[in-house]
Amino acid sequence: MSIVCRPALSLPEHSATLDEVVAHMAKLHAGHPRIRSALGLMRNTSVRTRSLIDPFDTVTRPRTFGERMRRYATAGTALGAGAAERALAQADTTPDEVDHLVLVSCTGYLLPGLDACIAGRLGLRRDARRLAFTQVGCAGGAYALARARELSLAHPGSVTLVVAVELCSLSYQPGDDRIASFVSTALFGDAAAACVVRDDRPGLRLDAAYEDLAPDTLRHISYDVDELGFHFDTNPRISRVVAESMPLLDKWLRANTSVLAPQPDFLISHTGGPRIMYEVSKGLGIPLAMFELSENSLARRGNTASVVVLDVLEQTFADPPHPGDQGLVIAFGPGVTTVAVTGTWVTA
Amino acid sequence: MSIVCRPALSLPEHSATLDEVVAHMAKLHAGHPRIRSALGLMRNTSVRTRSLIDPFDTVTRPRTFGERMRRYATAGTALGAGAAERALAQADTTPDEVDHLVLVSCTGYLLPGLDACIAGRLGLRRDARRLAFTQVGCAGGAYALARARELSLAHPGSVTLVVAVELCSLSYQPGDDRIASFVSTALFGDAAAACVVRDDRPGLRLDAAYEDLAPDTLRHISYDVDELGFHFDTNPRISRVVAESMPLLDKWLRANTSVLAPQPDFLISHTGGPRIMYEVSKGLGIPLAMFELSENSLARRGNTASVVVLDVLEQTFADPPHPGDQGLVIAFGPGVTTVAVTGTWVTA
Repeated sequence: MSIVCRPALSLPEHSATLDEVVAHMAKLHAGHPRIRSALGLMRNTSVRTRSLIDPFDTVTRPRTFGERMRRYATAGTALGAGAAERALAQADTTPDEVDHLVLVSCTGYLLPGLDACIAGRLGLRRDARRLAFTQVGCAGGAYALARARELSLAHPGSVTLVVAVELCSLSYQPGDDRIASFVSTALFGDAAAACVVRDDRPGLRLDAAYEDLAPDTLRHISYDVDELGFHFDTNPRISRVVAESMPLLDKWLRANTSVLAPQPDFLISHTGGPRIMYEVSKGLGIPLAMFELSENSLARRGNTASVVVLDVLEQTFADPPHPGDQGLVIAFGPGVTTVAVTGTWVTA
Repeated sequence: MSIVCRPALSLPEHSATLDEVVAHMAKLHAGHPRIRSALGLMRNTSVRTRSLIDPFDTVTRPRTFGERMRRYATAGTALGAGAAERALAQADTTPDEVDHLVLVSCTGYLLPGLDACIAGRLGLRRDARRLAFTQVGCAGGAYALARARELSLAHPGSVTLVVAVELCSLSYQPGDDRIASFVSTALFGDAAAACVVRDDRPGLRLDAAYEDLAPDTLRHISYDVDELGFHFDTNPRISRVVAESMPLLDKWLRANTSVLAPQPDFLISHTGGPRIMYEVSKGLGIPLAMFELSENSLARRGNTASVVVLDVLEQTFADPPHPGDQGLVIAFGPGVTTVAVTGTWVTA
C-alpha cells in the first residue's frame, strides 16, 4: 500500500510578472513579423507571475550552456533538498527511513544527477535506491507517483521520497523567435516539490496507474538540444492527441477503477493550458470547475513541469477531500505520454 | 520471479584500434608536457579495438553539441532497436508482450528520450511502461537488471525489455588535454545491448539486489557538461572508494545470499580497469581469473559503459553455468554508486 503524504513546495526568491516578461519579449523581438500575435498568445497563457532562481535580468542575458548547467546543479540541489526536508518533516519521517528516492527533473542534465547530490545533502542512507528520470517533462509529477506505487508493491512497507525539481528559466533562449518559444517564455517558472510515500500515514492512497504513449507524436512536445542548451518546442496538435487518447484512458478507468462513477471526487491535474483541460474534461466527463486548483497553480507559479501535480496535491491537502473520496491524478509529457494514477483519500 | 534471457548485442560498423587512437592523440597533443606518460596510460588500458558509429576521422573532428545529439538520436535509436529486436526473438517474445521497457544510456540527452523512440520503432504496446535512466553511467547494466527485478516483483508475470545504448564516441573532446581525457579516449567504445526479463524462460534468475552510494564522492566519476557536450572525468581515488565499499557489500551478500559461500560460480562484472577488478577480487574473495570475460569485453569493445554487463552476460550464455549455479552481477557508476545483483542459473 502506498499513501502519499502532504507535499512541500520550495519556491525560489526571485520572480517575474507576465507584464515584465511580455515587455521584455516585445522589446527584444520588436521587429518580429508576428510580434502582436506572439505577445497576444503570451497574454493568453493566464500566467500572472512565477518564481525564479535568478533575477529576470540574469535569466534573460545570454548564458552559455555550461553556466546554465552549473547553476542547475547548485540551485537544483538546494531547492530540491529544501522541499525534501520539509516534506520529510511533515510526514514525520527521518532521512534514515527513506528506502527509495524518486527524482524527476527535465530542465538540466548532470552526471551524477541531482538524485545523488540531494541524497548526500539530506543524509539518506547510503543503501537507499535512487531512481532519477530526466525525460518525462510535465508528466513527471504523476509519473513519479506511479513509480513510488511500484516501489511499494515491490518492497512492501518501504518508504519512498519523491522529489521534483524544475528550473525552467535555465532553458530561456534569447535567440529563439518561433511562436512556441514566445509561449514557453510566458509560461516557465522555477520550483521544487517533494512528498513522502509510505503505508502508515494519512493522505492519498495510490490505487492504480496508467501510462500511454500516443503513436507518432515524438515531435509534439520536445527539446532541440544543442550548444545553447534546451530549446523547448510544442505543436498545437497536442490537444488533438490528448483528445484522441482520452477514450483509451476512459475505458481503462471504467474497467479498472470506480473513479469515473460518476466522476472523480477530486482532480489533481497538470495544467497544460485551457485546450488540454477542455479535452480532458470532455473526454472523461469531468467538470471544468474541477481544474480550478490547476489553474491557480498556473496563474501563480507558471508551468513548473513535473512540480505542478505536487503543487495541486499540496493545495488539495489544504482543503482535503473526505475519507473514502476517490480522485484522479493526470498529466501529459513528451512522447506524447499520458500518465494517470487513481487514488483514495485515507485517514490514519 | 525474474529471469534474464540471453542478451543480444548490436555493434556499429566502424572501428578503431588502440594504435590508431594513440597515434591520433600523439599527433594532436604533440606539445603536451606529459605526453609520454599520457600515451603510456592509454596503452595500459588493455583495449585492443572498439566499434564506432562513425569513422574515426569523423569521431575526432570538431562537432557541435547539436550535431552530436542529433547523431545520438538517429544512431542510438537504430542500434538500440536492433539489439532489442534480436533479444526479443532470442527470448521468443513478441513486442506486444512487453509490459515494461527499461532503457539505460548516459552518452546523450534527448527529450523525449531514446525509450520513446525505440518503443515506437519496435512497435511496443502504447500502454507499455517506460523507465529511462540517463545518469547511471557504467553501473547502468546491473542497475537496469535491478529495476527489471523490481518491476517483476511489483507486477508478477510481467515482461520487461532491458535496452542499454552507449555512444561514448560522441563525448570525444578534441580540446581536452587532462590526463583523464587521454584515458577515456583510449577506453571509449560504442555499442547497444538488450535482454528480455520474464518468469517463464531459462536463464539467470535475479534473486537479490544491492545499491550503495559512497559518501562525498560526487566528483570521482562525473561529466562536466557545457556547450561542447559531456567532458568525462574520473579520479584515481575511485579504486580506494571501491575498496572501502567492499566490506559493506560483503556483509550484505553474506547476510542475504549464499553467493559468497565459498565464492560465486560465475561473475558478471563491469570492467572498470585492473585496479577496480583487483579491489573487488580482494574485497569479496573472488579469484581474479573470474574477471576473464570482463577483460575480453574491455579488450574487444572498449568501455561501453552500461552495455558491458550485458555483453559479459551474453558471453556467459555462450558457455553457460550449470543449473543451480549462483552468480554475482556487479558494476560501478557515478555517485560513486555500487550496484550488485545476485542470481541463479535456471533451466525451463
